[in-house]
Amino acid sequence: MTFSSDVRDALIHQEIELPSWAFGNSGTRFKVFGQPGVPRTPEEKIADAAQVHRHTGIAPSVALHIPWDRVDDYAALAHHARDLGVRIGAINANVFQDDDYRLGSVANPDPVVRRKALDHLLECVDVMDATGSRDLKLWFADGTNYPGQDDIRARQDRLAEALAAVRDRLGPGQRILLEYKLFEPAFYTTDVPDWGTAYAHCLRLGEQARVVVDTGHHAPGTNIEFIVAFLLREGRLGGFDFNSRFYADDDLMVGAADPFQLFRIMHEVVRGGGLAPEAGIAFMLDQCHNIEPKIPGQIRSVLNVQEATAKALLVDAHALAAAQSAGDVLGANAVLMDAYHTDVRPLLAELRADRGLDPDPMAAYAASGHAEKIAAERVGGRPAGWGA
Amino acid sequence: MTFSSDVRDALIHQEIELPSWAFGNSGTRFKVFGQPGVPRTPEEKIADAAQVHRHTGIAPSVALHIPWDRVDDYAALAHHARDLGVRIGAINANVFQDDDYRLGSVANPDPVVRRKALDHLLECVDVMDATGSRDLKLWFADGTNYPGQDDIRARQDRLAEALAAVRDRLGPGQRILLEYKLFEPAFYTTDVPDWGTAYAHCLRLGEQARVVVDTGHHAPGTNIEFIVAFLLREGRLGGFDFNSRFYADDDLMVGAADPFQLFRIMHEVVRGGGLAPEAGIAFMLDQCHNIEPKIPGQIRSVLNVQEATAKALLVDAHALAAAQSAGDVLGANAVLMDAYHTDVRPLLAELRADRGLDPDPMAAYAASGHAEKIAAERVGGRPAGWGA
Amino acid sequence: MTFSSDVRDALIHQEIELPSWAFGNSGTRFKVFGQPGVPRTPEEKIADAAQVHRHTGIAPSVALHIPWDRVDDYAALAHHARDLGVRIGAINANVFQDDDYRLGSVANPDPVVRRKALDHLLECVDVMDATGSRDLKLWFADGTNYPGQDDIRARQDRLAEALAAVRDRLGPGQRILLEYKLFEPAFYTTDVPDWGTAYAHCLRLGEQARVVVDTGHHAPGTNIEFIVAFLLREGRLGGFDFNSRFYADDDLMVGAADPFQLFRIMHEVVRGGGLAPEAGIAFMLDQCHNIEPKIPGQIRSVLNVQEATAKALLVDAHALAAAQSAGDVLGANAVLMDAYHTDVRPLLAELRADRGLDPDPMAAYAASGHAEKIAAERVGGRPAGWGA
Amino acid sequence: MTFSSDVRDALIHQEIELPSWAFGNSGTRFKVFGQPGVPRTPEEKIADAAQVHRHTGIAPSVALHIPWDRVDDYAALAHHARDLGVRIGAINANVFQDDDYRLGSVANPDPVVRRKALDHLLECVDVMDATGSRDLKLWFADGTNYPGQDDIRARQDRLAEALAAVRDRLGPGQRILLEYKLFEPAFYTTDVPDWGTAYAHCLRLGEQARVVVDTGHHAPGTNIEFIVAFLLREGRLGGFDFNSRFYADDDLMVGAADPFQLFRIMHEVVRGGGLAPEAGIAFMLDQCHNIEPKIPGQIRSVLNVQEATAKALLVDAHALAAAQSAGDVLGANAVLMDAYHTDVRPLLAELRADRGLDPDPMAAYAASGHAEKIAAERVGGRPAGWGA
Repeated sequence: MTFSSDVRDALIHQEIELPSWAFGNSGTRFKVFGQPGVPRTPEEKIADAAQVHRHTGIAPSVALHIPWDRVDDYAALAHHARDLGVRIGAINANVFQDDDYRLGSVANPDPVVRRKALDHLLECVDVMDATGSRDLKLWFADGTNYPGQDDIRARQDRLAEALAAVRDRLGPGQRILLEYKLFEPAFYTTDVPDWGTAYAHCLRLGEQARVVVDTGHHAPGTNIEFIVAFLLREGRLGGFDFNSRFYADDDLMVGAADPFQLFRIMHEVVRGGGLAPEAGIAFMLDQCHNIEPKIPGQIRSVLNVQEATAKALLVDAHALAAAQSAGDVLGANAVLMDAYHTDVRPLLAELRADRGLDPDPMAAYAASGHAEKIAAERVGGRPAGWGA
Repeated sequence: MTFSSDVRDALIHQEIELPSWAFGNSGTRFKVFGQPGVPRTPEEKIADAAQVHRHTGIAPSVALHIPWDRVDDYAALAHHARDLGVRIGAINANVFQDDDYRLGSVANPDPVVRRKALDHLLECVDVMDATGSRDLKLWFADGTNYPGQDDIRARQDRLAEALAAVRDRLGPGQRILLEYKLFEPAFYTTDVPDWGTAYAHCLRLGEQARVVVDTGHHAPGTNIEFIVAFLLREGRLGGFDFNSRFYADDDLMVGAADPFQLFRIMHEVVRGGGLAPEAGIAFMLDQCHNIEPKIPGQIRSVLNVQEATAKALLVDAHALAAAQSAGDVLGANAVLMDAYHTDVRPLLAELRADRGLDPDPMAAYAASGHAEKIAAERVGGRPAGWGA
Repeated sequence: MTFSSDVRDALIHQEIELPSWAFGNSGTRFKVFGQPGVPRTPEEKIADAAQVHRHTGIAPSVALHIPWDRVDDYAALAHHARDLGVRIGAINANVFQDDDYRLGSVANPDPVVRRKALDHLLECVDVMDATGSRDLKLWFADGTNYPGQDDIRARQDRLAEALAAVRDRLGPGQRILLEYKLFEPAFYTTDVPDWGTAYAHCLRLGEQARVVVDTGHHAPGTNIEFIVAFLLREGRLGGFDFNSRFYADDDLMVGAADPFQLFRIMHEVVRGGGLAPEAGIAFMLDQCHNIEPKIPGQIRSVLNVQEATAKALLVDAHALAAAQSAGDVLGANAVLMDAYHTDVRPLLAELRADRGLDPDPMAAYAASGHAEKIAAERVGGRPAGWGA
Repeated sequence: MTFSSDVRDALIHQEIELPSWAFGNSGTRFKVFGQPGVPRTPEEKIADAAQVHRHTGIAPSVALHIPWDRVDDYAALAHHARDLGVRIGAINANVFQDDDYRLGSVANPDPVVRRKALDHLLECVDVMDATGSRDLKLWFADGTNYPGQDDIRARQDRLAEALAAVRDRLGPGQRILLEYKLFEPAFYTTDVPDWGTAYAHCLRLGEQARVVVDTGHHAPGTNIEFIVAFLLREGRLGGFDFNSRFYADDDLMVGAADPFQLFRIMHEVVRGGGLAPEAGIAFMLDQCHNIEPKIPGQIRSVLNVQEATAKALLVDAHALAAAQSAGDVLGANAVLMDAYHTDVRPLLAELRADRGLDPDPMAAYAASGHAEKIAAERVGGRPAGWGA
């Protein structure tokens, strides 16, 4: 078995964006376990991301998180990235870690806090201008913990106002990617809890606003691939924050908890034309490595997306459509499962070899000495984490 | 403590619609337990609904389900209802109980089946014309049981086409109420699984289409009152199918599983102006009584909605707003909880007495002899149920 | 790549039991869609089960459900099975479909109903004596729909009393397999809702009672393989009722919803010695085919279990243990995933060919003409279903 | 309406234990929002707990968390508590915040780490000896994040070994309270994920080990009151960690998310004799106040438990039993709901006044000036939190 040239092309051109924060320390509310070699600066995070790209060949961009990745000169940071063979991707705003945000940011009842939050969002567009980033990814931790704590509807009004102000600030080609999340850190209501809410806001914002699907942000039992298919049909899917989870927003490596779900999602992406560059879908990882080593965790995650994509590309679309229109339940399911059960790893190894990459990125990284090097070099300073 | 005149007015004018099918036999896939006195005809169902209205004073309409309530002369049925002091409410279409609908109705891959389903929907508008009903309630059991079984996106196209055809057939003042449901009877995808999907379709359909919230149709952890507040803000809330559940779509008496949630929902209704007649919100019960007696089950349910509404009306809106804008988390919560903890039953009993009703509807029904009468009279014939 | 002889042996000796009711009609509370060729009698169900065994080679027994499979002469039925190359497996009691069981069976507040239910259970042991069955599988639909409806603790007392009476009636070598289920058809409490409850009862009953794990009967997020590992460690795992689900107890084909979960379960079975015949683990399917054809649905399900088992047997136990004790999170995970990602289908096809079976059981069944034959022959009479 | 003397007695003698950590700062993984007046030392935490007892009259003990509350002289700390009118309650061990515990504590694959964890548990028994505490509360964050990461069964063996060693160290009258939790911080398996696992371990440990039910630690849809009733029947309920949640382990104020559930739990406690001192049930709060003020948050929580208890005590047990044995579903439910709907707040206010307490503890605290006093006094030093 071999990949067709179409499949090869699609796999070669797929790009998966890495989050800078995946290389810093992270953990749960109970404990953050530090690791050796963790970057101290945005520059070092980008260097680690470049390692992932070096071994996988399909992770050429890295998302920033402001203020965690705040630097004086973003153009210089972008230059640094290019020197390492990668580029700056989406800019992620952070309006949840200031003491002022205890009751929310852009939906806070206090207009002074709202203004502060909006200013930060606008600052992020400034950063985009400097880095050449297309996408502003907005996740709002806003919500309430107790019934009655605040007015659900008024918070929507405030949110809408802030989003409109950001939209007005966008330059041509720049986009808002609006993220939703069921719960956490707000525990009673979240101001953008589901795709419907994000979608409704994007509709009002216009063509420059799209929904981003974080695979860990749904209620139990939610069919994520349905949402993906629906948003693609509506032309409102902006991208993915990939990760996986068994329970809540666990931020495990994408594909680790339910590889079949990841395959089904990628099947809908392929079906909906989402792999084509003109579709403008950003495939981003958004996950943290609490107990596993960070660079290998990212490599493994990139490979998991790639393997799921390869399987999705192997689905026999004609046979599937034929079985579907014949109402052949088991036959149609079998066409899909046949692709899923295929072991694409040898084919992907071959593809890598053809591109001059090591066929086994995990082994190649282990052999590269990078882990030992950064552990030795990155001593002193303050390891990056969520708080900085 | 007494109700203010505003609260009294709101409570007196609230109308809760009963489902005709609540009076027939129902059950689970494992067993339907029959009960004595169950109606055999739509006329008898309406007679039972009229009993509920007689004792509660706030349940003046009854929804029909076609074909379960199919009659030759709907105008005569409407007349029969008026004679009993009630009226015909929403018309509920049923496109899930014909053998042709094994793979769906309006989203079926087979165009012949789709046409059949659409014809039924149009027939339901004919019924509305005859009964003077405003609302066509559409719930589609459509979906798939296995990944790959059918094309998610194509099913949306088919669904949209059917909805548009129904919309085109509506007369002035008639509305589509589009219901969503997470799962069951479809077990992998449902074609209208969440409010976002229903909302997106309604937007395309125009002003005569609105979303109906069935309180039992959500994923675990979904904040239903948020959806209610959001749809009210968007002007797209069409009404409720009230019931309650501990697990999935259990169809228990509304308020039985989580009375606090029902209160929070009614609080958002009050907050969003949804009690005003001009808001056009249909407050409907949609639940079945598998093991409890049916007429008392409906009376209890109507009272549960009324009690939750009364509590919601008791919320001190000024104090709440003040605490909210002061960021007083515990204070704002306390304002809400104060209303919830109030025992409104004596006040409602008084209100009933003032209106010439028995203050205790459950006891009054038990004393009325109706249960014994229908058990004695309704012998022979075929008890109504979901299948007929 | 080839299977080692140990793996071959394990795969050849694995036995998966089929449920007689999988061949009858089934559906949801909304609709049962009939299919052509559905058996009318227990004998015809066994004939269909024999077809599944003919093509898979690993499904040599069929479970009965009393009274759905009630016959005058069980010894004759067992003989009929042997003539067709299979045998009678577990006896499943049914104490949920009589009008008397509206409020429960062995936990009913009415002692007369309890006695009736117990008598049925004892009758099932009589059947076991006649068929030579080892296992009595007990699933109780008992529970309540509303808080307060009955006394939770008293129901446990009644349940314990009935179980003890059944235990006393068992012959040597006979076992009780006690099933648990989170909810449905009871919607507030279920009397055996989780493995802990089943386990506690089994402990009191003694060595002849074990827990059966139905893979569809858990709360969202439950880690089923943990339960399997725990019960194996305690020596209290009696067997599986395999099926799969996306939401609640959907009864889809095992492995259809989450093949990775099925693999993890089988990994714990292998790890805990559960494949060895002396472990006494009954691997049973318990699922229904609502919209898909029934015999192919069973063949596909048997193959899914076999494929998951094969993958579990491929796990490199030494490498896994080494990575685990080294605390190598990604390394240990990779050992497991390597087995999971392996496409075992060619190896299993080869194994079948070696045993004289068609390498592709699905295709072989399709080509066998059996489906057409039963559709033509089984005309008239009453198709089997849950109600008969 | 008045309380009967039995109900008064039960309410007066109910004791609710406060967690020392409720008075320190806490938050989510995203952010800990500091508050003014937060204690810096165990002594200050106890002083805050004493305030809660002063205003409620039913919170006379405070649980410690080691090492967060580590002091040189525990006897002196106990003396300090007595001086303030309270006493030291349960000792909570902490084996999840050392870097060594990245892969677990007593179930860690590394025997050196296991020994360290066990030594801490034994140290906690030393503390108990010094403080006179009866209960050692054990919650293990142990588990794994990825399938294959460690051996599920081997971890149980290690856990059992550690528990046995602790049990051997207990003095007469001392108890192990073993807590379970579905997930978090472990995201794939948790070593004590459910009551069944905790129960099985307690059975092997003997009479000095009991299960503690944390109300926030269950899978969605779990019926907690069933577990309470079951454990009481088995004599293995050790106590509660009260809190509430809408989603996962949110640690909101008990009764805030689902006051009806809290009532149902207390109803089973009353039904099972769990309020009697000789039942040995520890009623503890275990929750954190992330955005609300901490002392009022504790007062509110104590009142919520008290109100739920009062309602549960008002249930007409005779009427309930009569309706239950008559199979009167709606009647039995109505007896329970009648108690729930009763507004017990005036009666409890009266009870407080009779005991010389302010009838409104929340208002009394607000008027006491304590909040202002500690905000002014507790300046400098390091506010207590989870990390110290």
